[in-house]
Amino acid sequence: MLPDSPNDHSIGLVSTQYVHIEQPLKLACGLVLKSHDLVYETYGELNGERSNGVLLCHALSGDHHAAGFHEGDSRPGWWEHYVGPGKPIDTDKFFVVSLNNIGSCFGSTGPASINPDTGEVWGADFPSLRARDWVESQKLLMKYLGIECWAAVIGGSLGGMQAMRWSLEHPDKLLNAVVIASSMKLTAQNIAFNEIARRAIKSDSDFCDGHYLTQNKAPLRGLALARMIGHVTYLSDELMGQKFGRQLRIGDLVDRNTDPIEFQVESYLNYQGDKFSDTFDANSYILITKMLDYFDLSREYENNPVKAFSHAKCNFLVVSFSSDWRFAPERSREITDALLAAGKSVSYVEIESDKGHDAFLLPNERYQNALDGYLSHVAQGLKGGAK
Amino acid sequence: MLPDSPNDHSIGLVSTQYVHIEQPLKLACGLVLKSHDLVYETYGELNGERSNGVLLCHALSGDHHAAGFHEGDSRPGWWEHYVGPGKPIDTDKFFVVSLNNIGSCFGSTGPASINPDTGEVWGADFPSLRARDWVESQKLLMKYLGIECWAAVIGGSLGGMQAMRWSLEHPDKLLNAVVIASSMKLTAQNIAFNEIARRAIKSDSDFCDGHYLTQNKAPLRGLALARMIGHVTYLSDELMGQKFGRQLRIGDLVDRNTDPIEFQVESYLNYQGDKFSDTFDANSYILITKMLDYFDLSREYENNPVKAFSHAKCNFLVVSFSSDWRFAPERSREITDALLAAGKSVSYVEIESDKGHDAFLLPNERYQNALDGYLSHVAQGLKGGAK
Repeated sequence: MLPDSPNDHSIGLVSTQYVHIEQPLKLACGLVLKSHDLVYETYGELNGERSNGVLLCHALSGDHHAAGFHEGDSRPGWWEHYVGPGKPIDTDKFFVVSLNNIGSCFGSTGPASINPDTGEVWGADFPSLRARDWVESQKLLMKYLGIECWAAVIGGSLGGMQAMRWSLEHPDKLLNAVVIASSMKLTAQNIAFNEIARRAIKSDSDFCDGHYLTQNKAPLRGLALARMIGHVTYLSDELMGQKFGRQLRIGDLVDRNTDPIEFQVESYLNYQGDKFSDTFDANSYILITKMLDYFDLSREYENNPVKAFSHAKCNFLVVSFSSDWRFAPERSREITDALLAAGKSVSYVEIESDKGHDAFLLPNERYQNALDGYLSHVAQGLKGGAK
Repeated sequence: MLPDSPNDHSIGLVSTQYVHIEQPLKLACGLVLKSHDLVYETYGELNGERSNGVLLCHALSGDHHAAGFHEGDSRPGWWEHYVGPGKPIDTDKFFVVSLNNIGSCFGSTGPASINPDTGEVWGADFPSLRARDWVESQKLLMKYLGIECWAAVIGGSLGGMQAMRWSLEHPDKLLNAVVIASSMKLTAQNIAFNEIARRAIKSDSDFCDGHYLTQNKAPLRGLALARMIGHVTYLSDELMGQKFGRQLRIGDLVDRNTDPIEFQVESYLNYQGDKFSDTFDANSYILITKMLDYFDLSREYENNPVKAFSHAKCNFLVVSFSSDWRFAPERSREITDALLAAGKSVSYVEIESDKGHDAFLLPNERYQNALDGYLSHVAQGLKGGAK
């Protein structure tokens, strides 16, 4: 059973750490980041063999704060339900590393950072990134932390893409990949939704071709719209029906001309959009949705996923959610089929859920059990014990 | 079989007609339109008994030009596949009436018209409308044309809502209602997509609170975005996959930083959005999406669709399309179930199609046969013969 409140088994107070990586990072686009900053958090303790490291990979809008509480905050990290002492990603057993990836906007080097070559904010000039660039940056953090091999690399959505990319690019550097609500490549519909979100941002007259920060502006309306589009598509039709139905925010539908009539779902969405635009950077949103679009697991393996996965050495857990229509179960089945055809060890679990793509962040007993079962087994096999 | 080209059995050259309706129209919101203009087209001939009139009801972005060609135009009307001599809506048998509804922007009175009380463009001050207002305006046109009872009222999407409303409000004024890809009320998800579209328009700094015309502006970016959102959701994931997949507009995904990488689906959508924003009025888009949201067939019938339909006297054909996820087959089954429970005569056809909501406009043999079979029967039963 899940705890009644995520706080019951929370890791408690956590603090964010920071590292300046001096080593140049050659990006897939051909450009080089001469150095970069990463912010990250760690939960649990590294064991004597340094074998119990687990890397969490965030998705589009995620950050390094996956679990526990920051001083003064009432809300825990984004994966509090699953990361903590006695939880599936068990901080009593694992040394969990969660970073904010480059290109994002929560402290690691990204479009809102200063370009050392110009002394100005990068803005829209920040290099185009690929999921593999995140993996390479994560590998530099891994080295800094003195970890030789991850017990597991875990992520949902774009996070799952990073886990898969790790398994191909650095097969000796991880023992397990947990790929949740992900895909080997986006569908045309998914790309279309991302493009509409980007166009919403770029259409905002305060976008200033991506150089809004140097002009003391911010495309808040466009970013809010982008988030609203994402938000609707990350929920299921069924869940929205249960949550809002056709309830009005106030009054009824009769004979109204002057007062605006607003459904609850409208005010909820507008609120979500506005809240998001206050905390996220528009250039990061454009950049990271492009990363999602560009991801194509097997492009360099003759477009053959089986050939691609034949390079992997780790074991896999693949998880999908029944009502997720942006990263549908079919996508996870494709991953699983390719892994099986490549002769890899893979467990696949399709979770019944009405919560759409967001299900991977939310409490669900079967999902919890699947993660727990798999990762308990991983912990048991650790060289040097849990810690 | 469908003709190879819609032109094979086209009605040919058609011309648009115009009527100024002097009679005041009391709107559901409580306001009164003292008079209004309607543009419309008619195809076929009214028979001696004036019994073969068929009313076509357009959807969100539709107009009066349903079939045939305007002088100099290379593209036919929006329902050319199904309206014409020998086609399912057979202009050799029926006198087909297709109008542009009030609130829209193709010549009938709407937000872009002059408010006679002020001498200024209505803009955002145009009254809020309901589907029943369109029905009442259509009834005034019916009277003008000297038709006492429609052989059928036919429409897809919002058009189907009008057909259902006709059956409840004026049960003696139609013999058949053909309700295609429609719903008794929108789901929360549908309302959410409409609200995002509206917010896209309102976020455009050229929207000027809906008074852009008097300021010689137009929220083209916002309207294009609104259309892009609509367009993606009216297509199926499957169709988009077939049509575009992950094809790039130019070049490949390797090592690119300076040139923008664009998928075909992106450039297609951007094109569709821009094209639409050149021809449609933003206030009309806001107004008509609100009509969709507000529609609730049984709200005044104790929220009981069976009670609502017990007022109907006509026969019904209900049609849905398997891949339509905005007006899913489930919605049409709800209509059919309520009609059956109310003891009405109803035929229901669920058409296999990968074309999403747009399927109702596109060629499909089974759909064609269903319409053809039903309407041939209607024609046979006409008082005074086909014409």
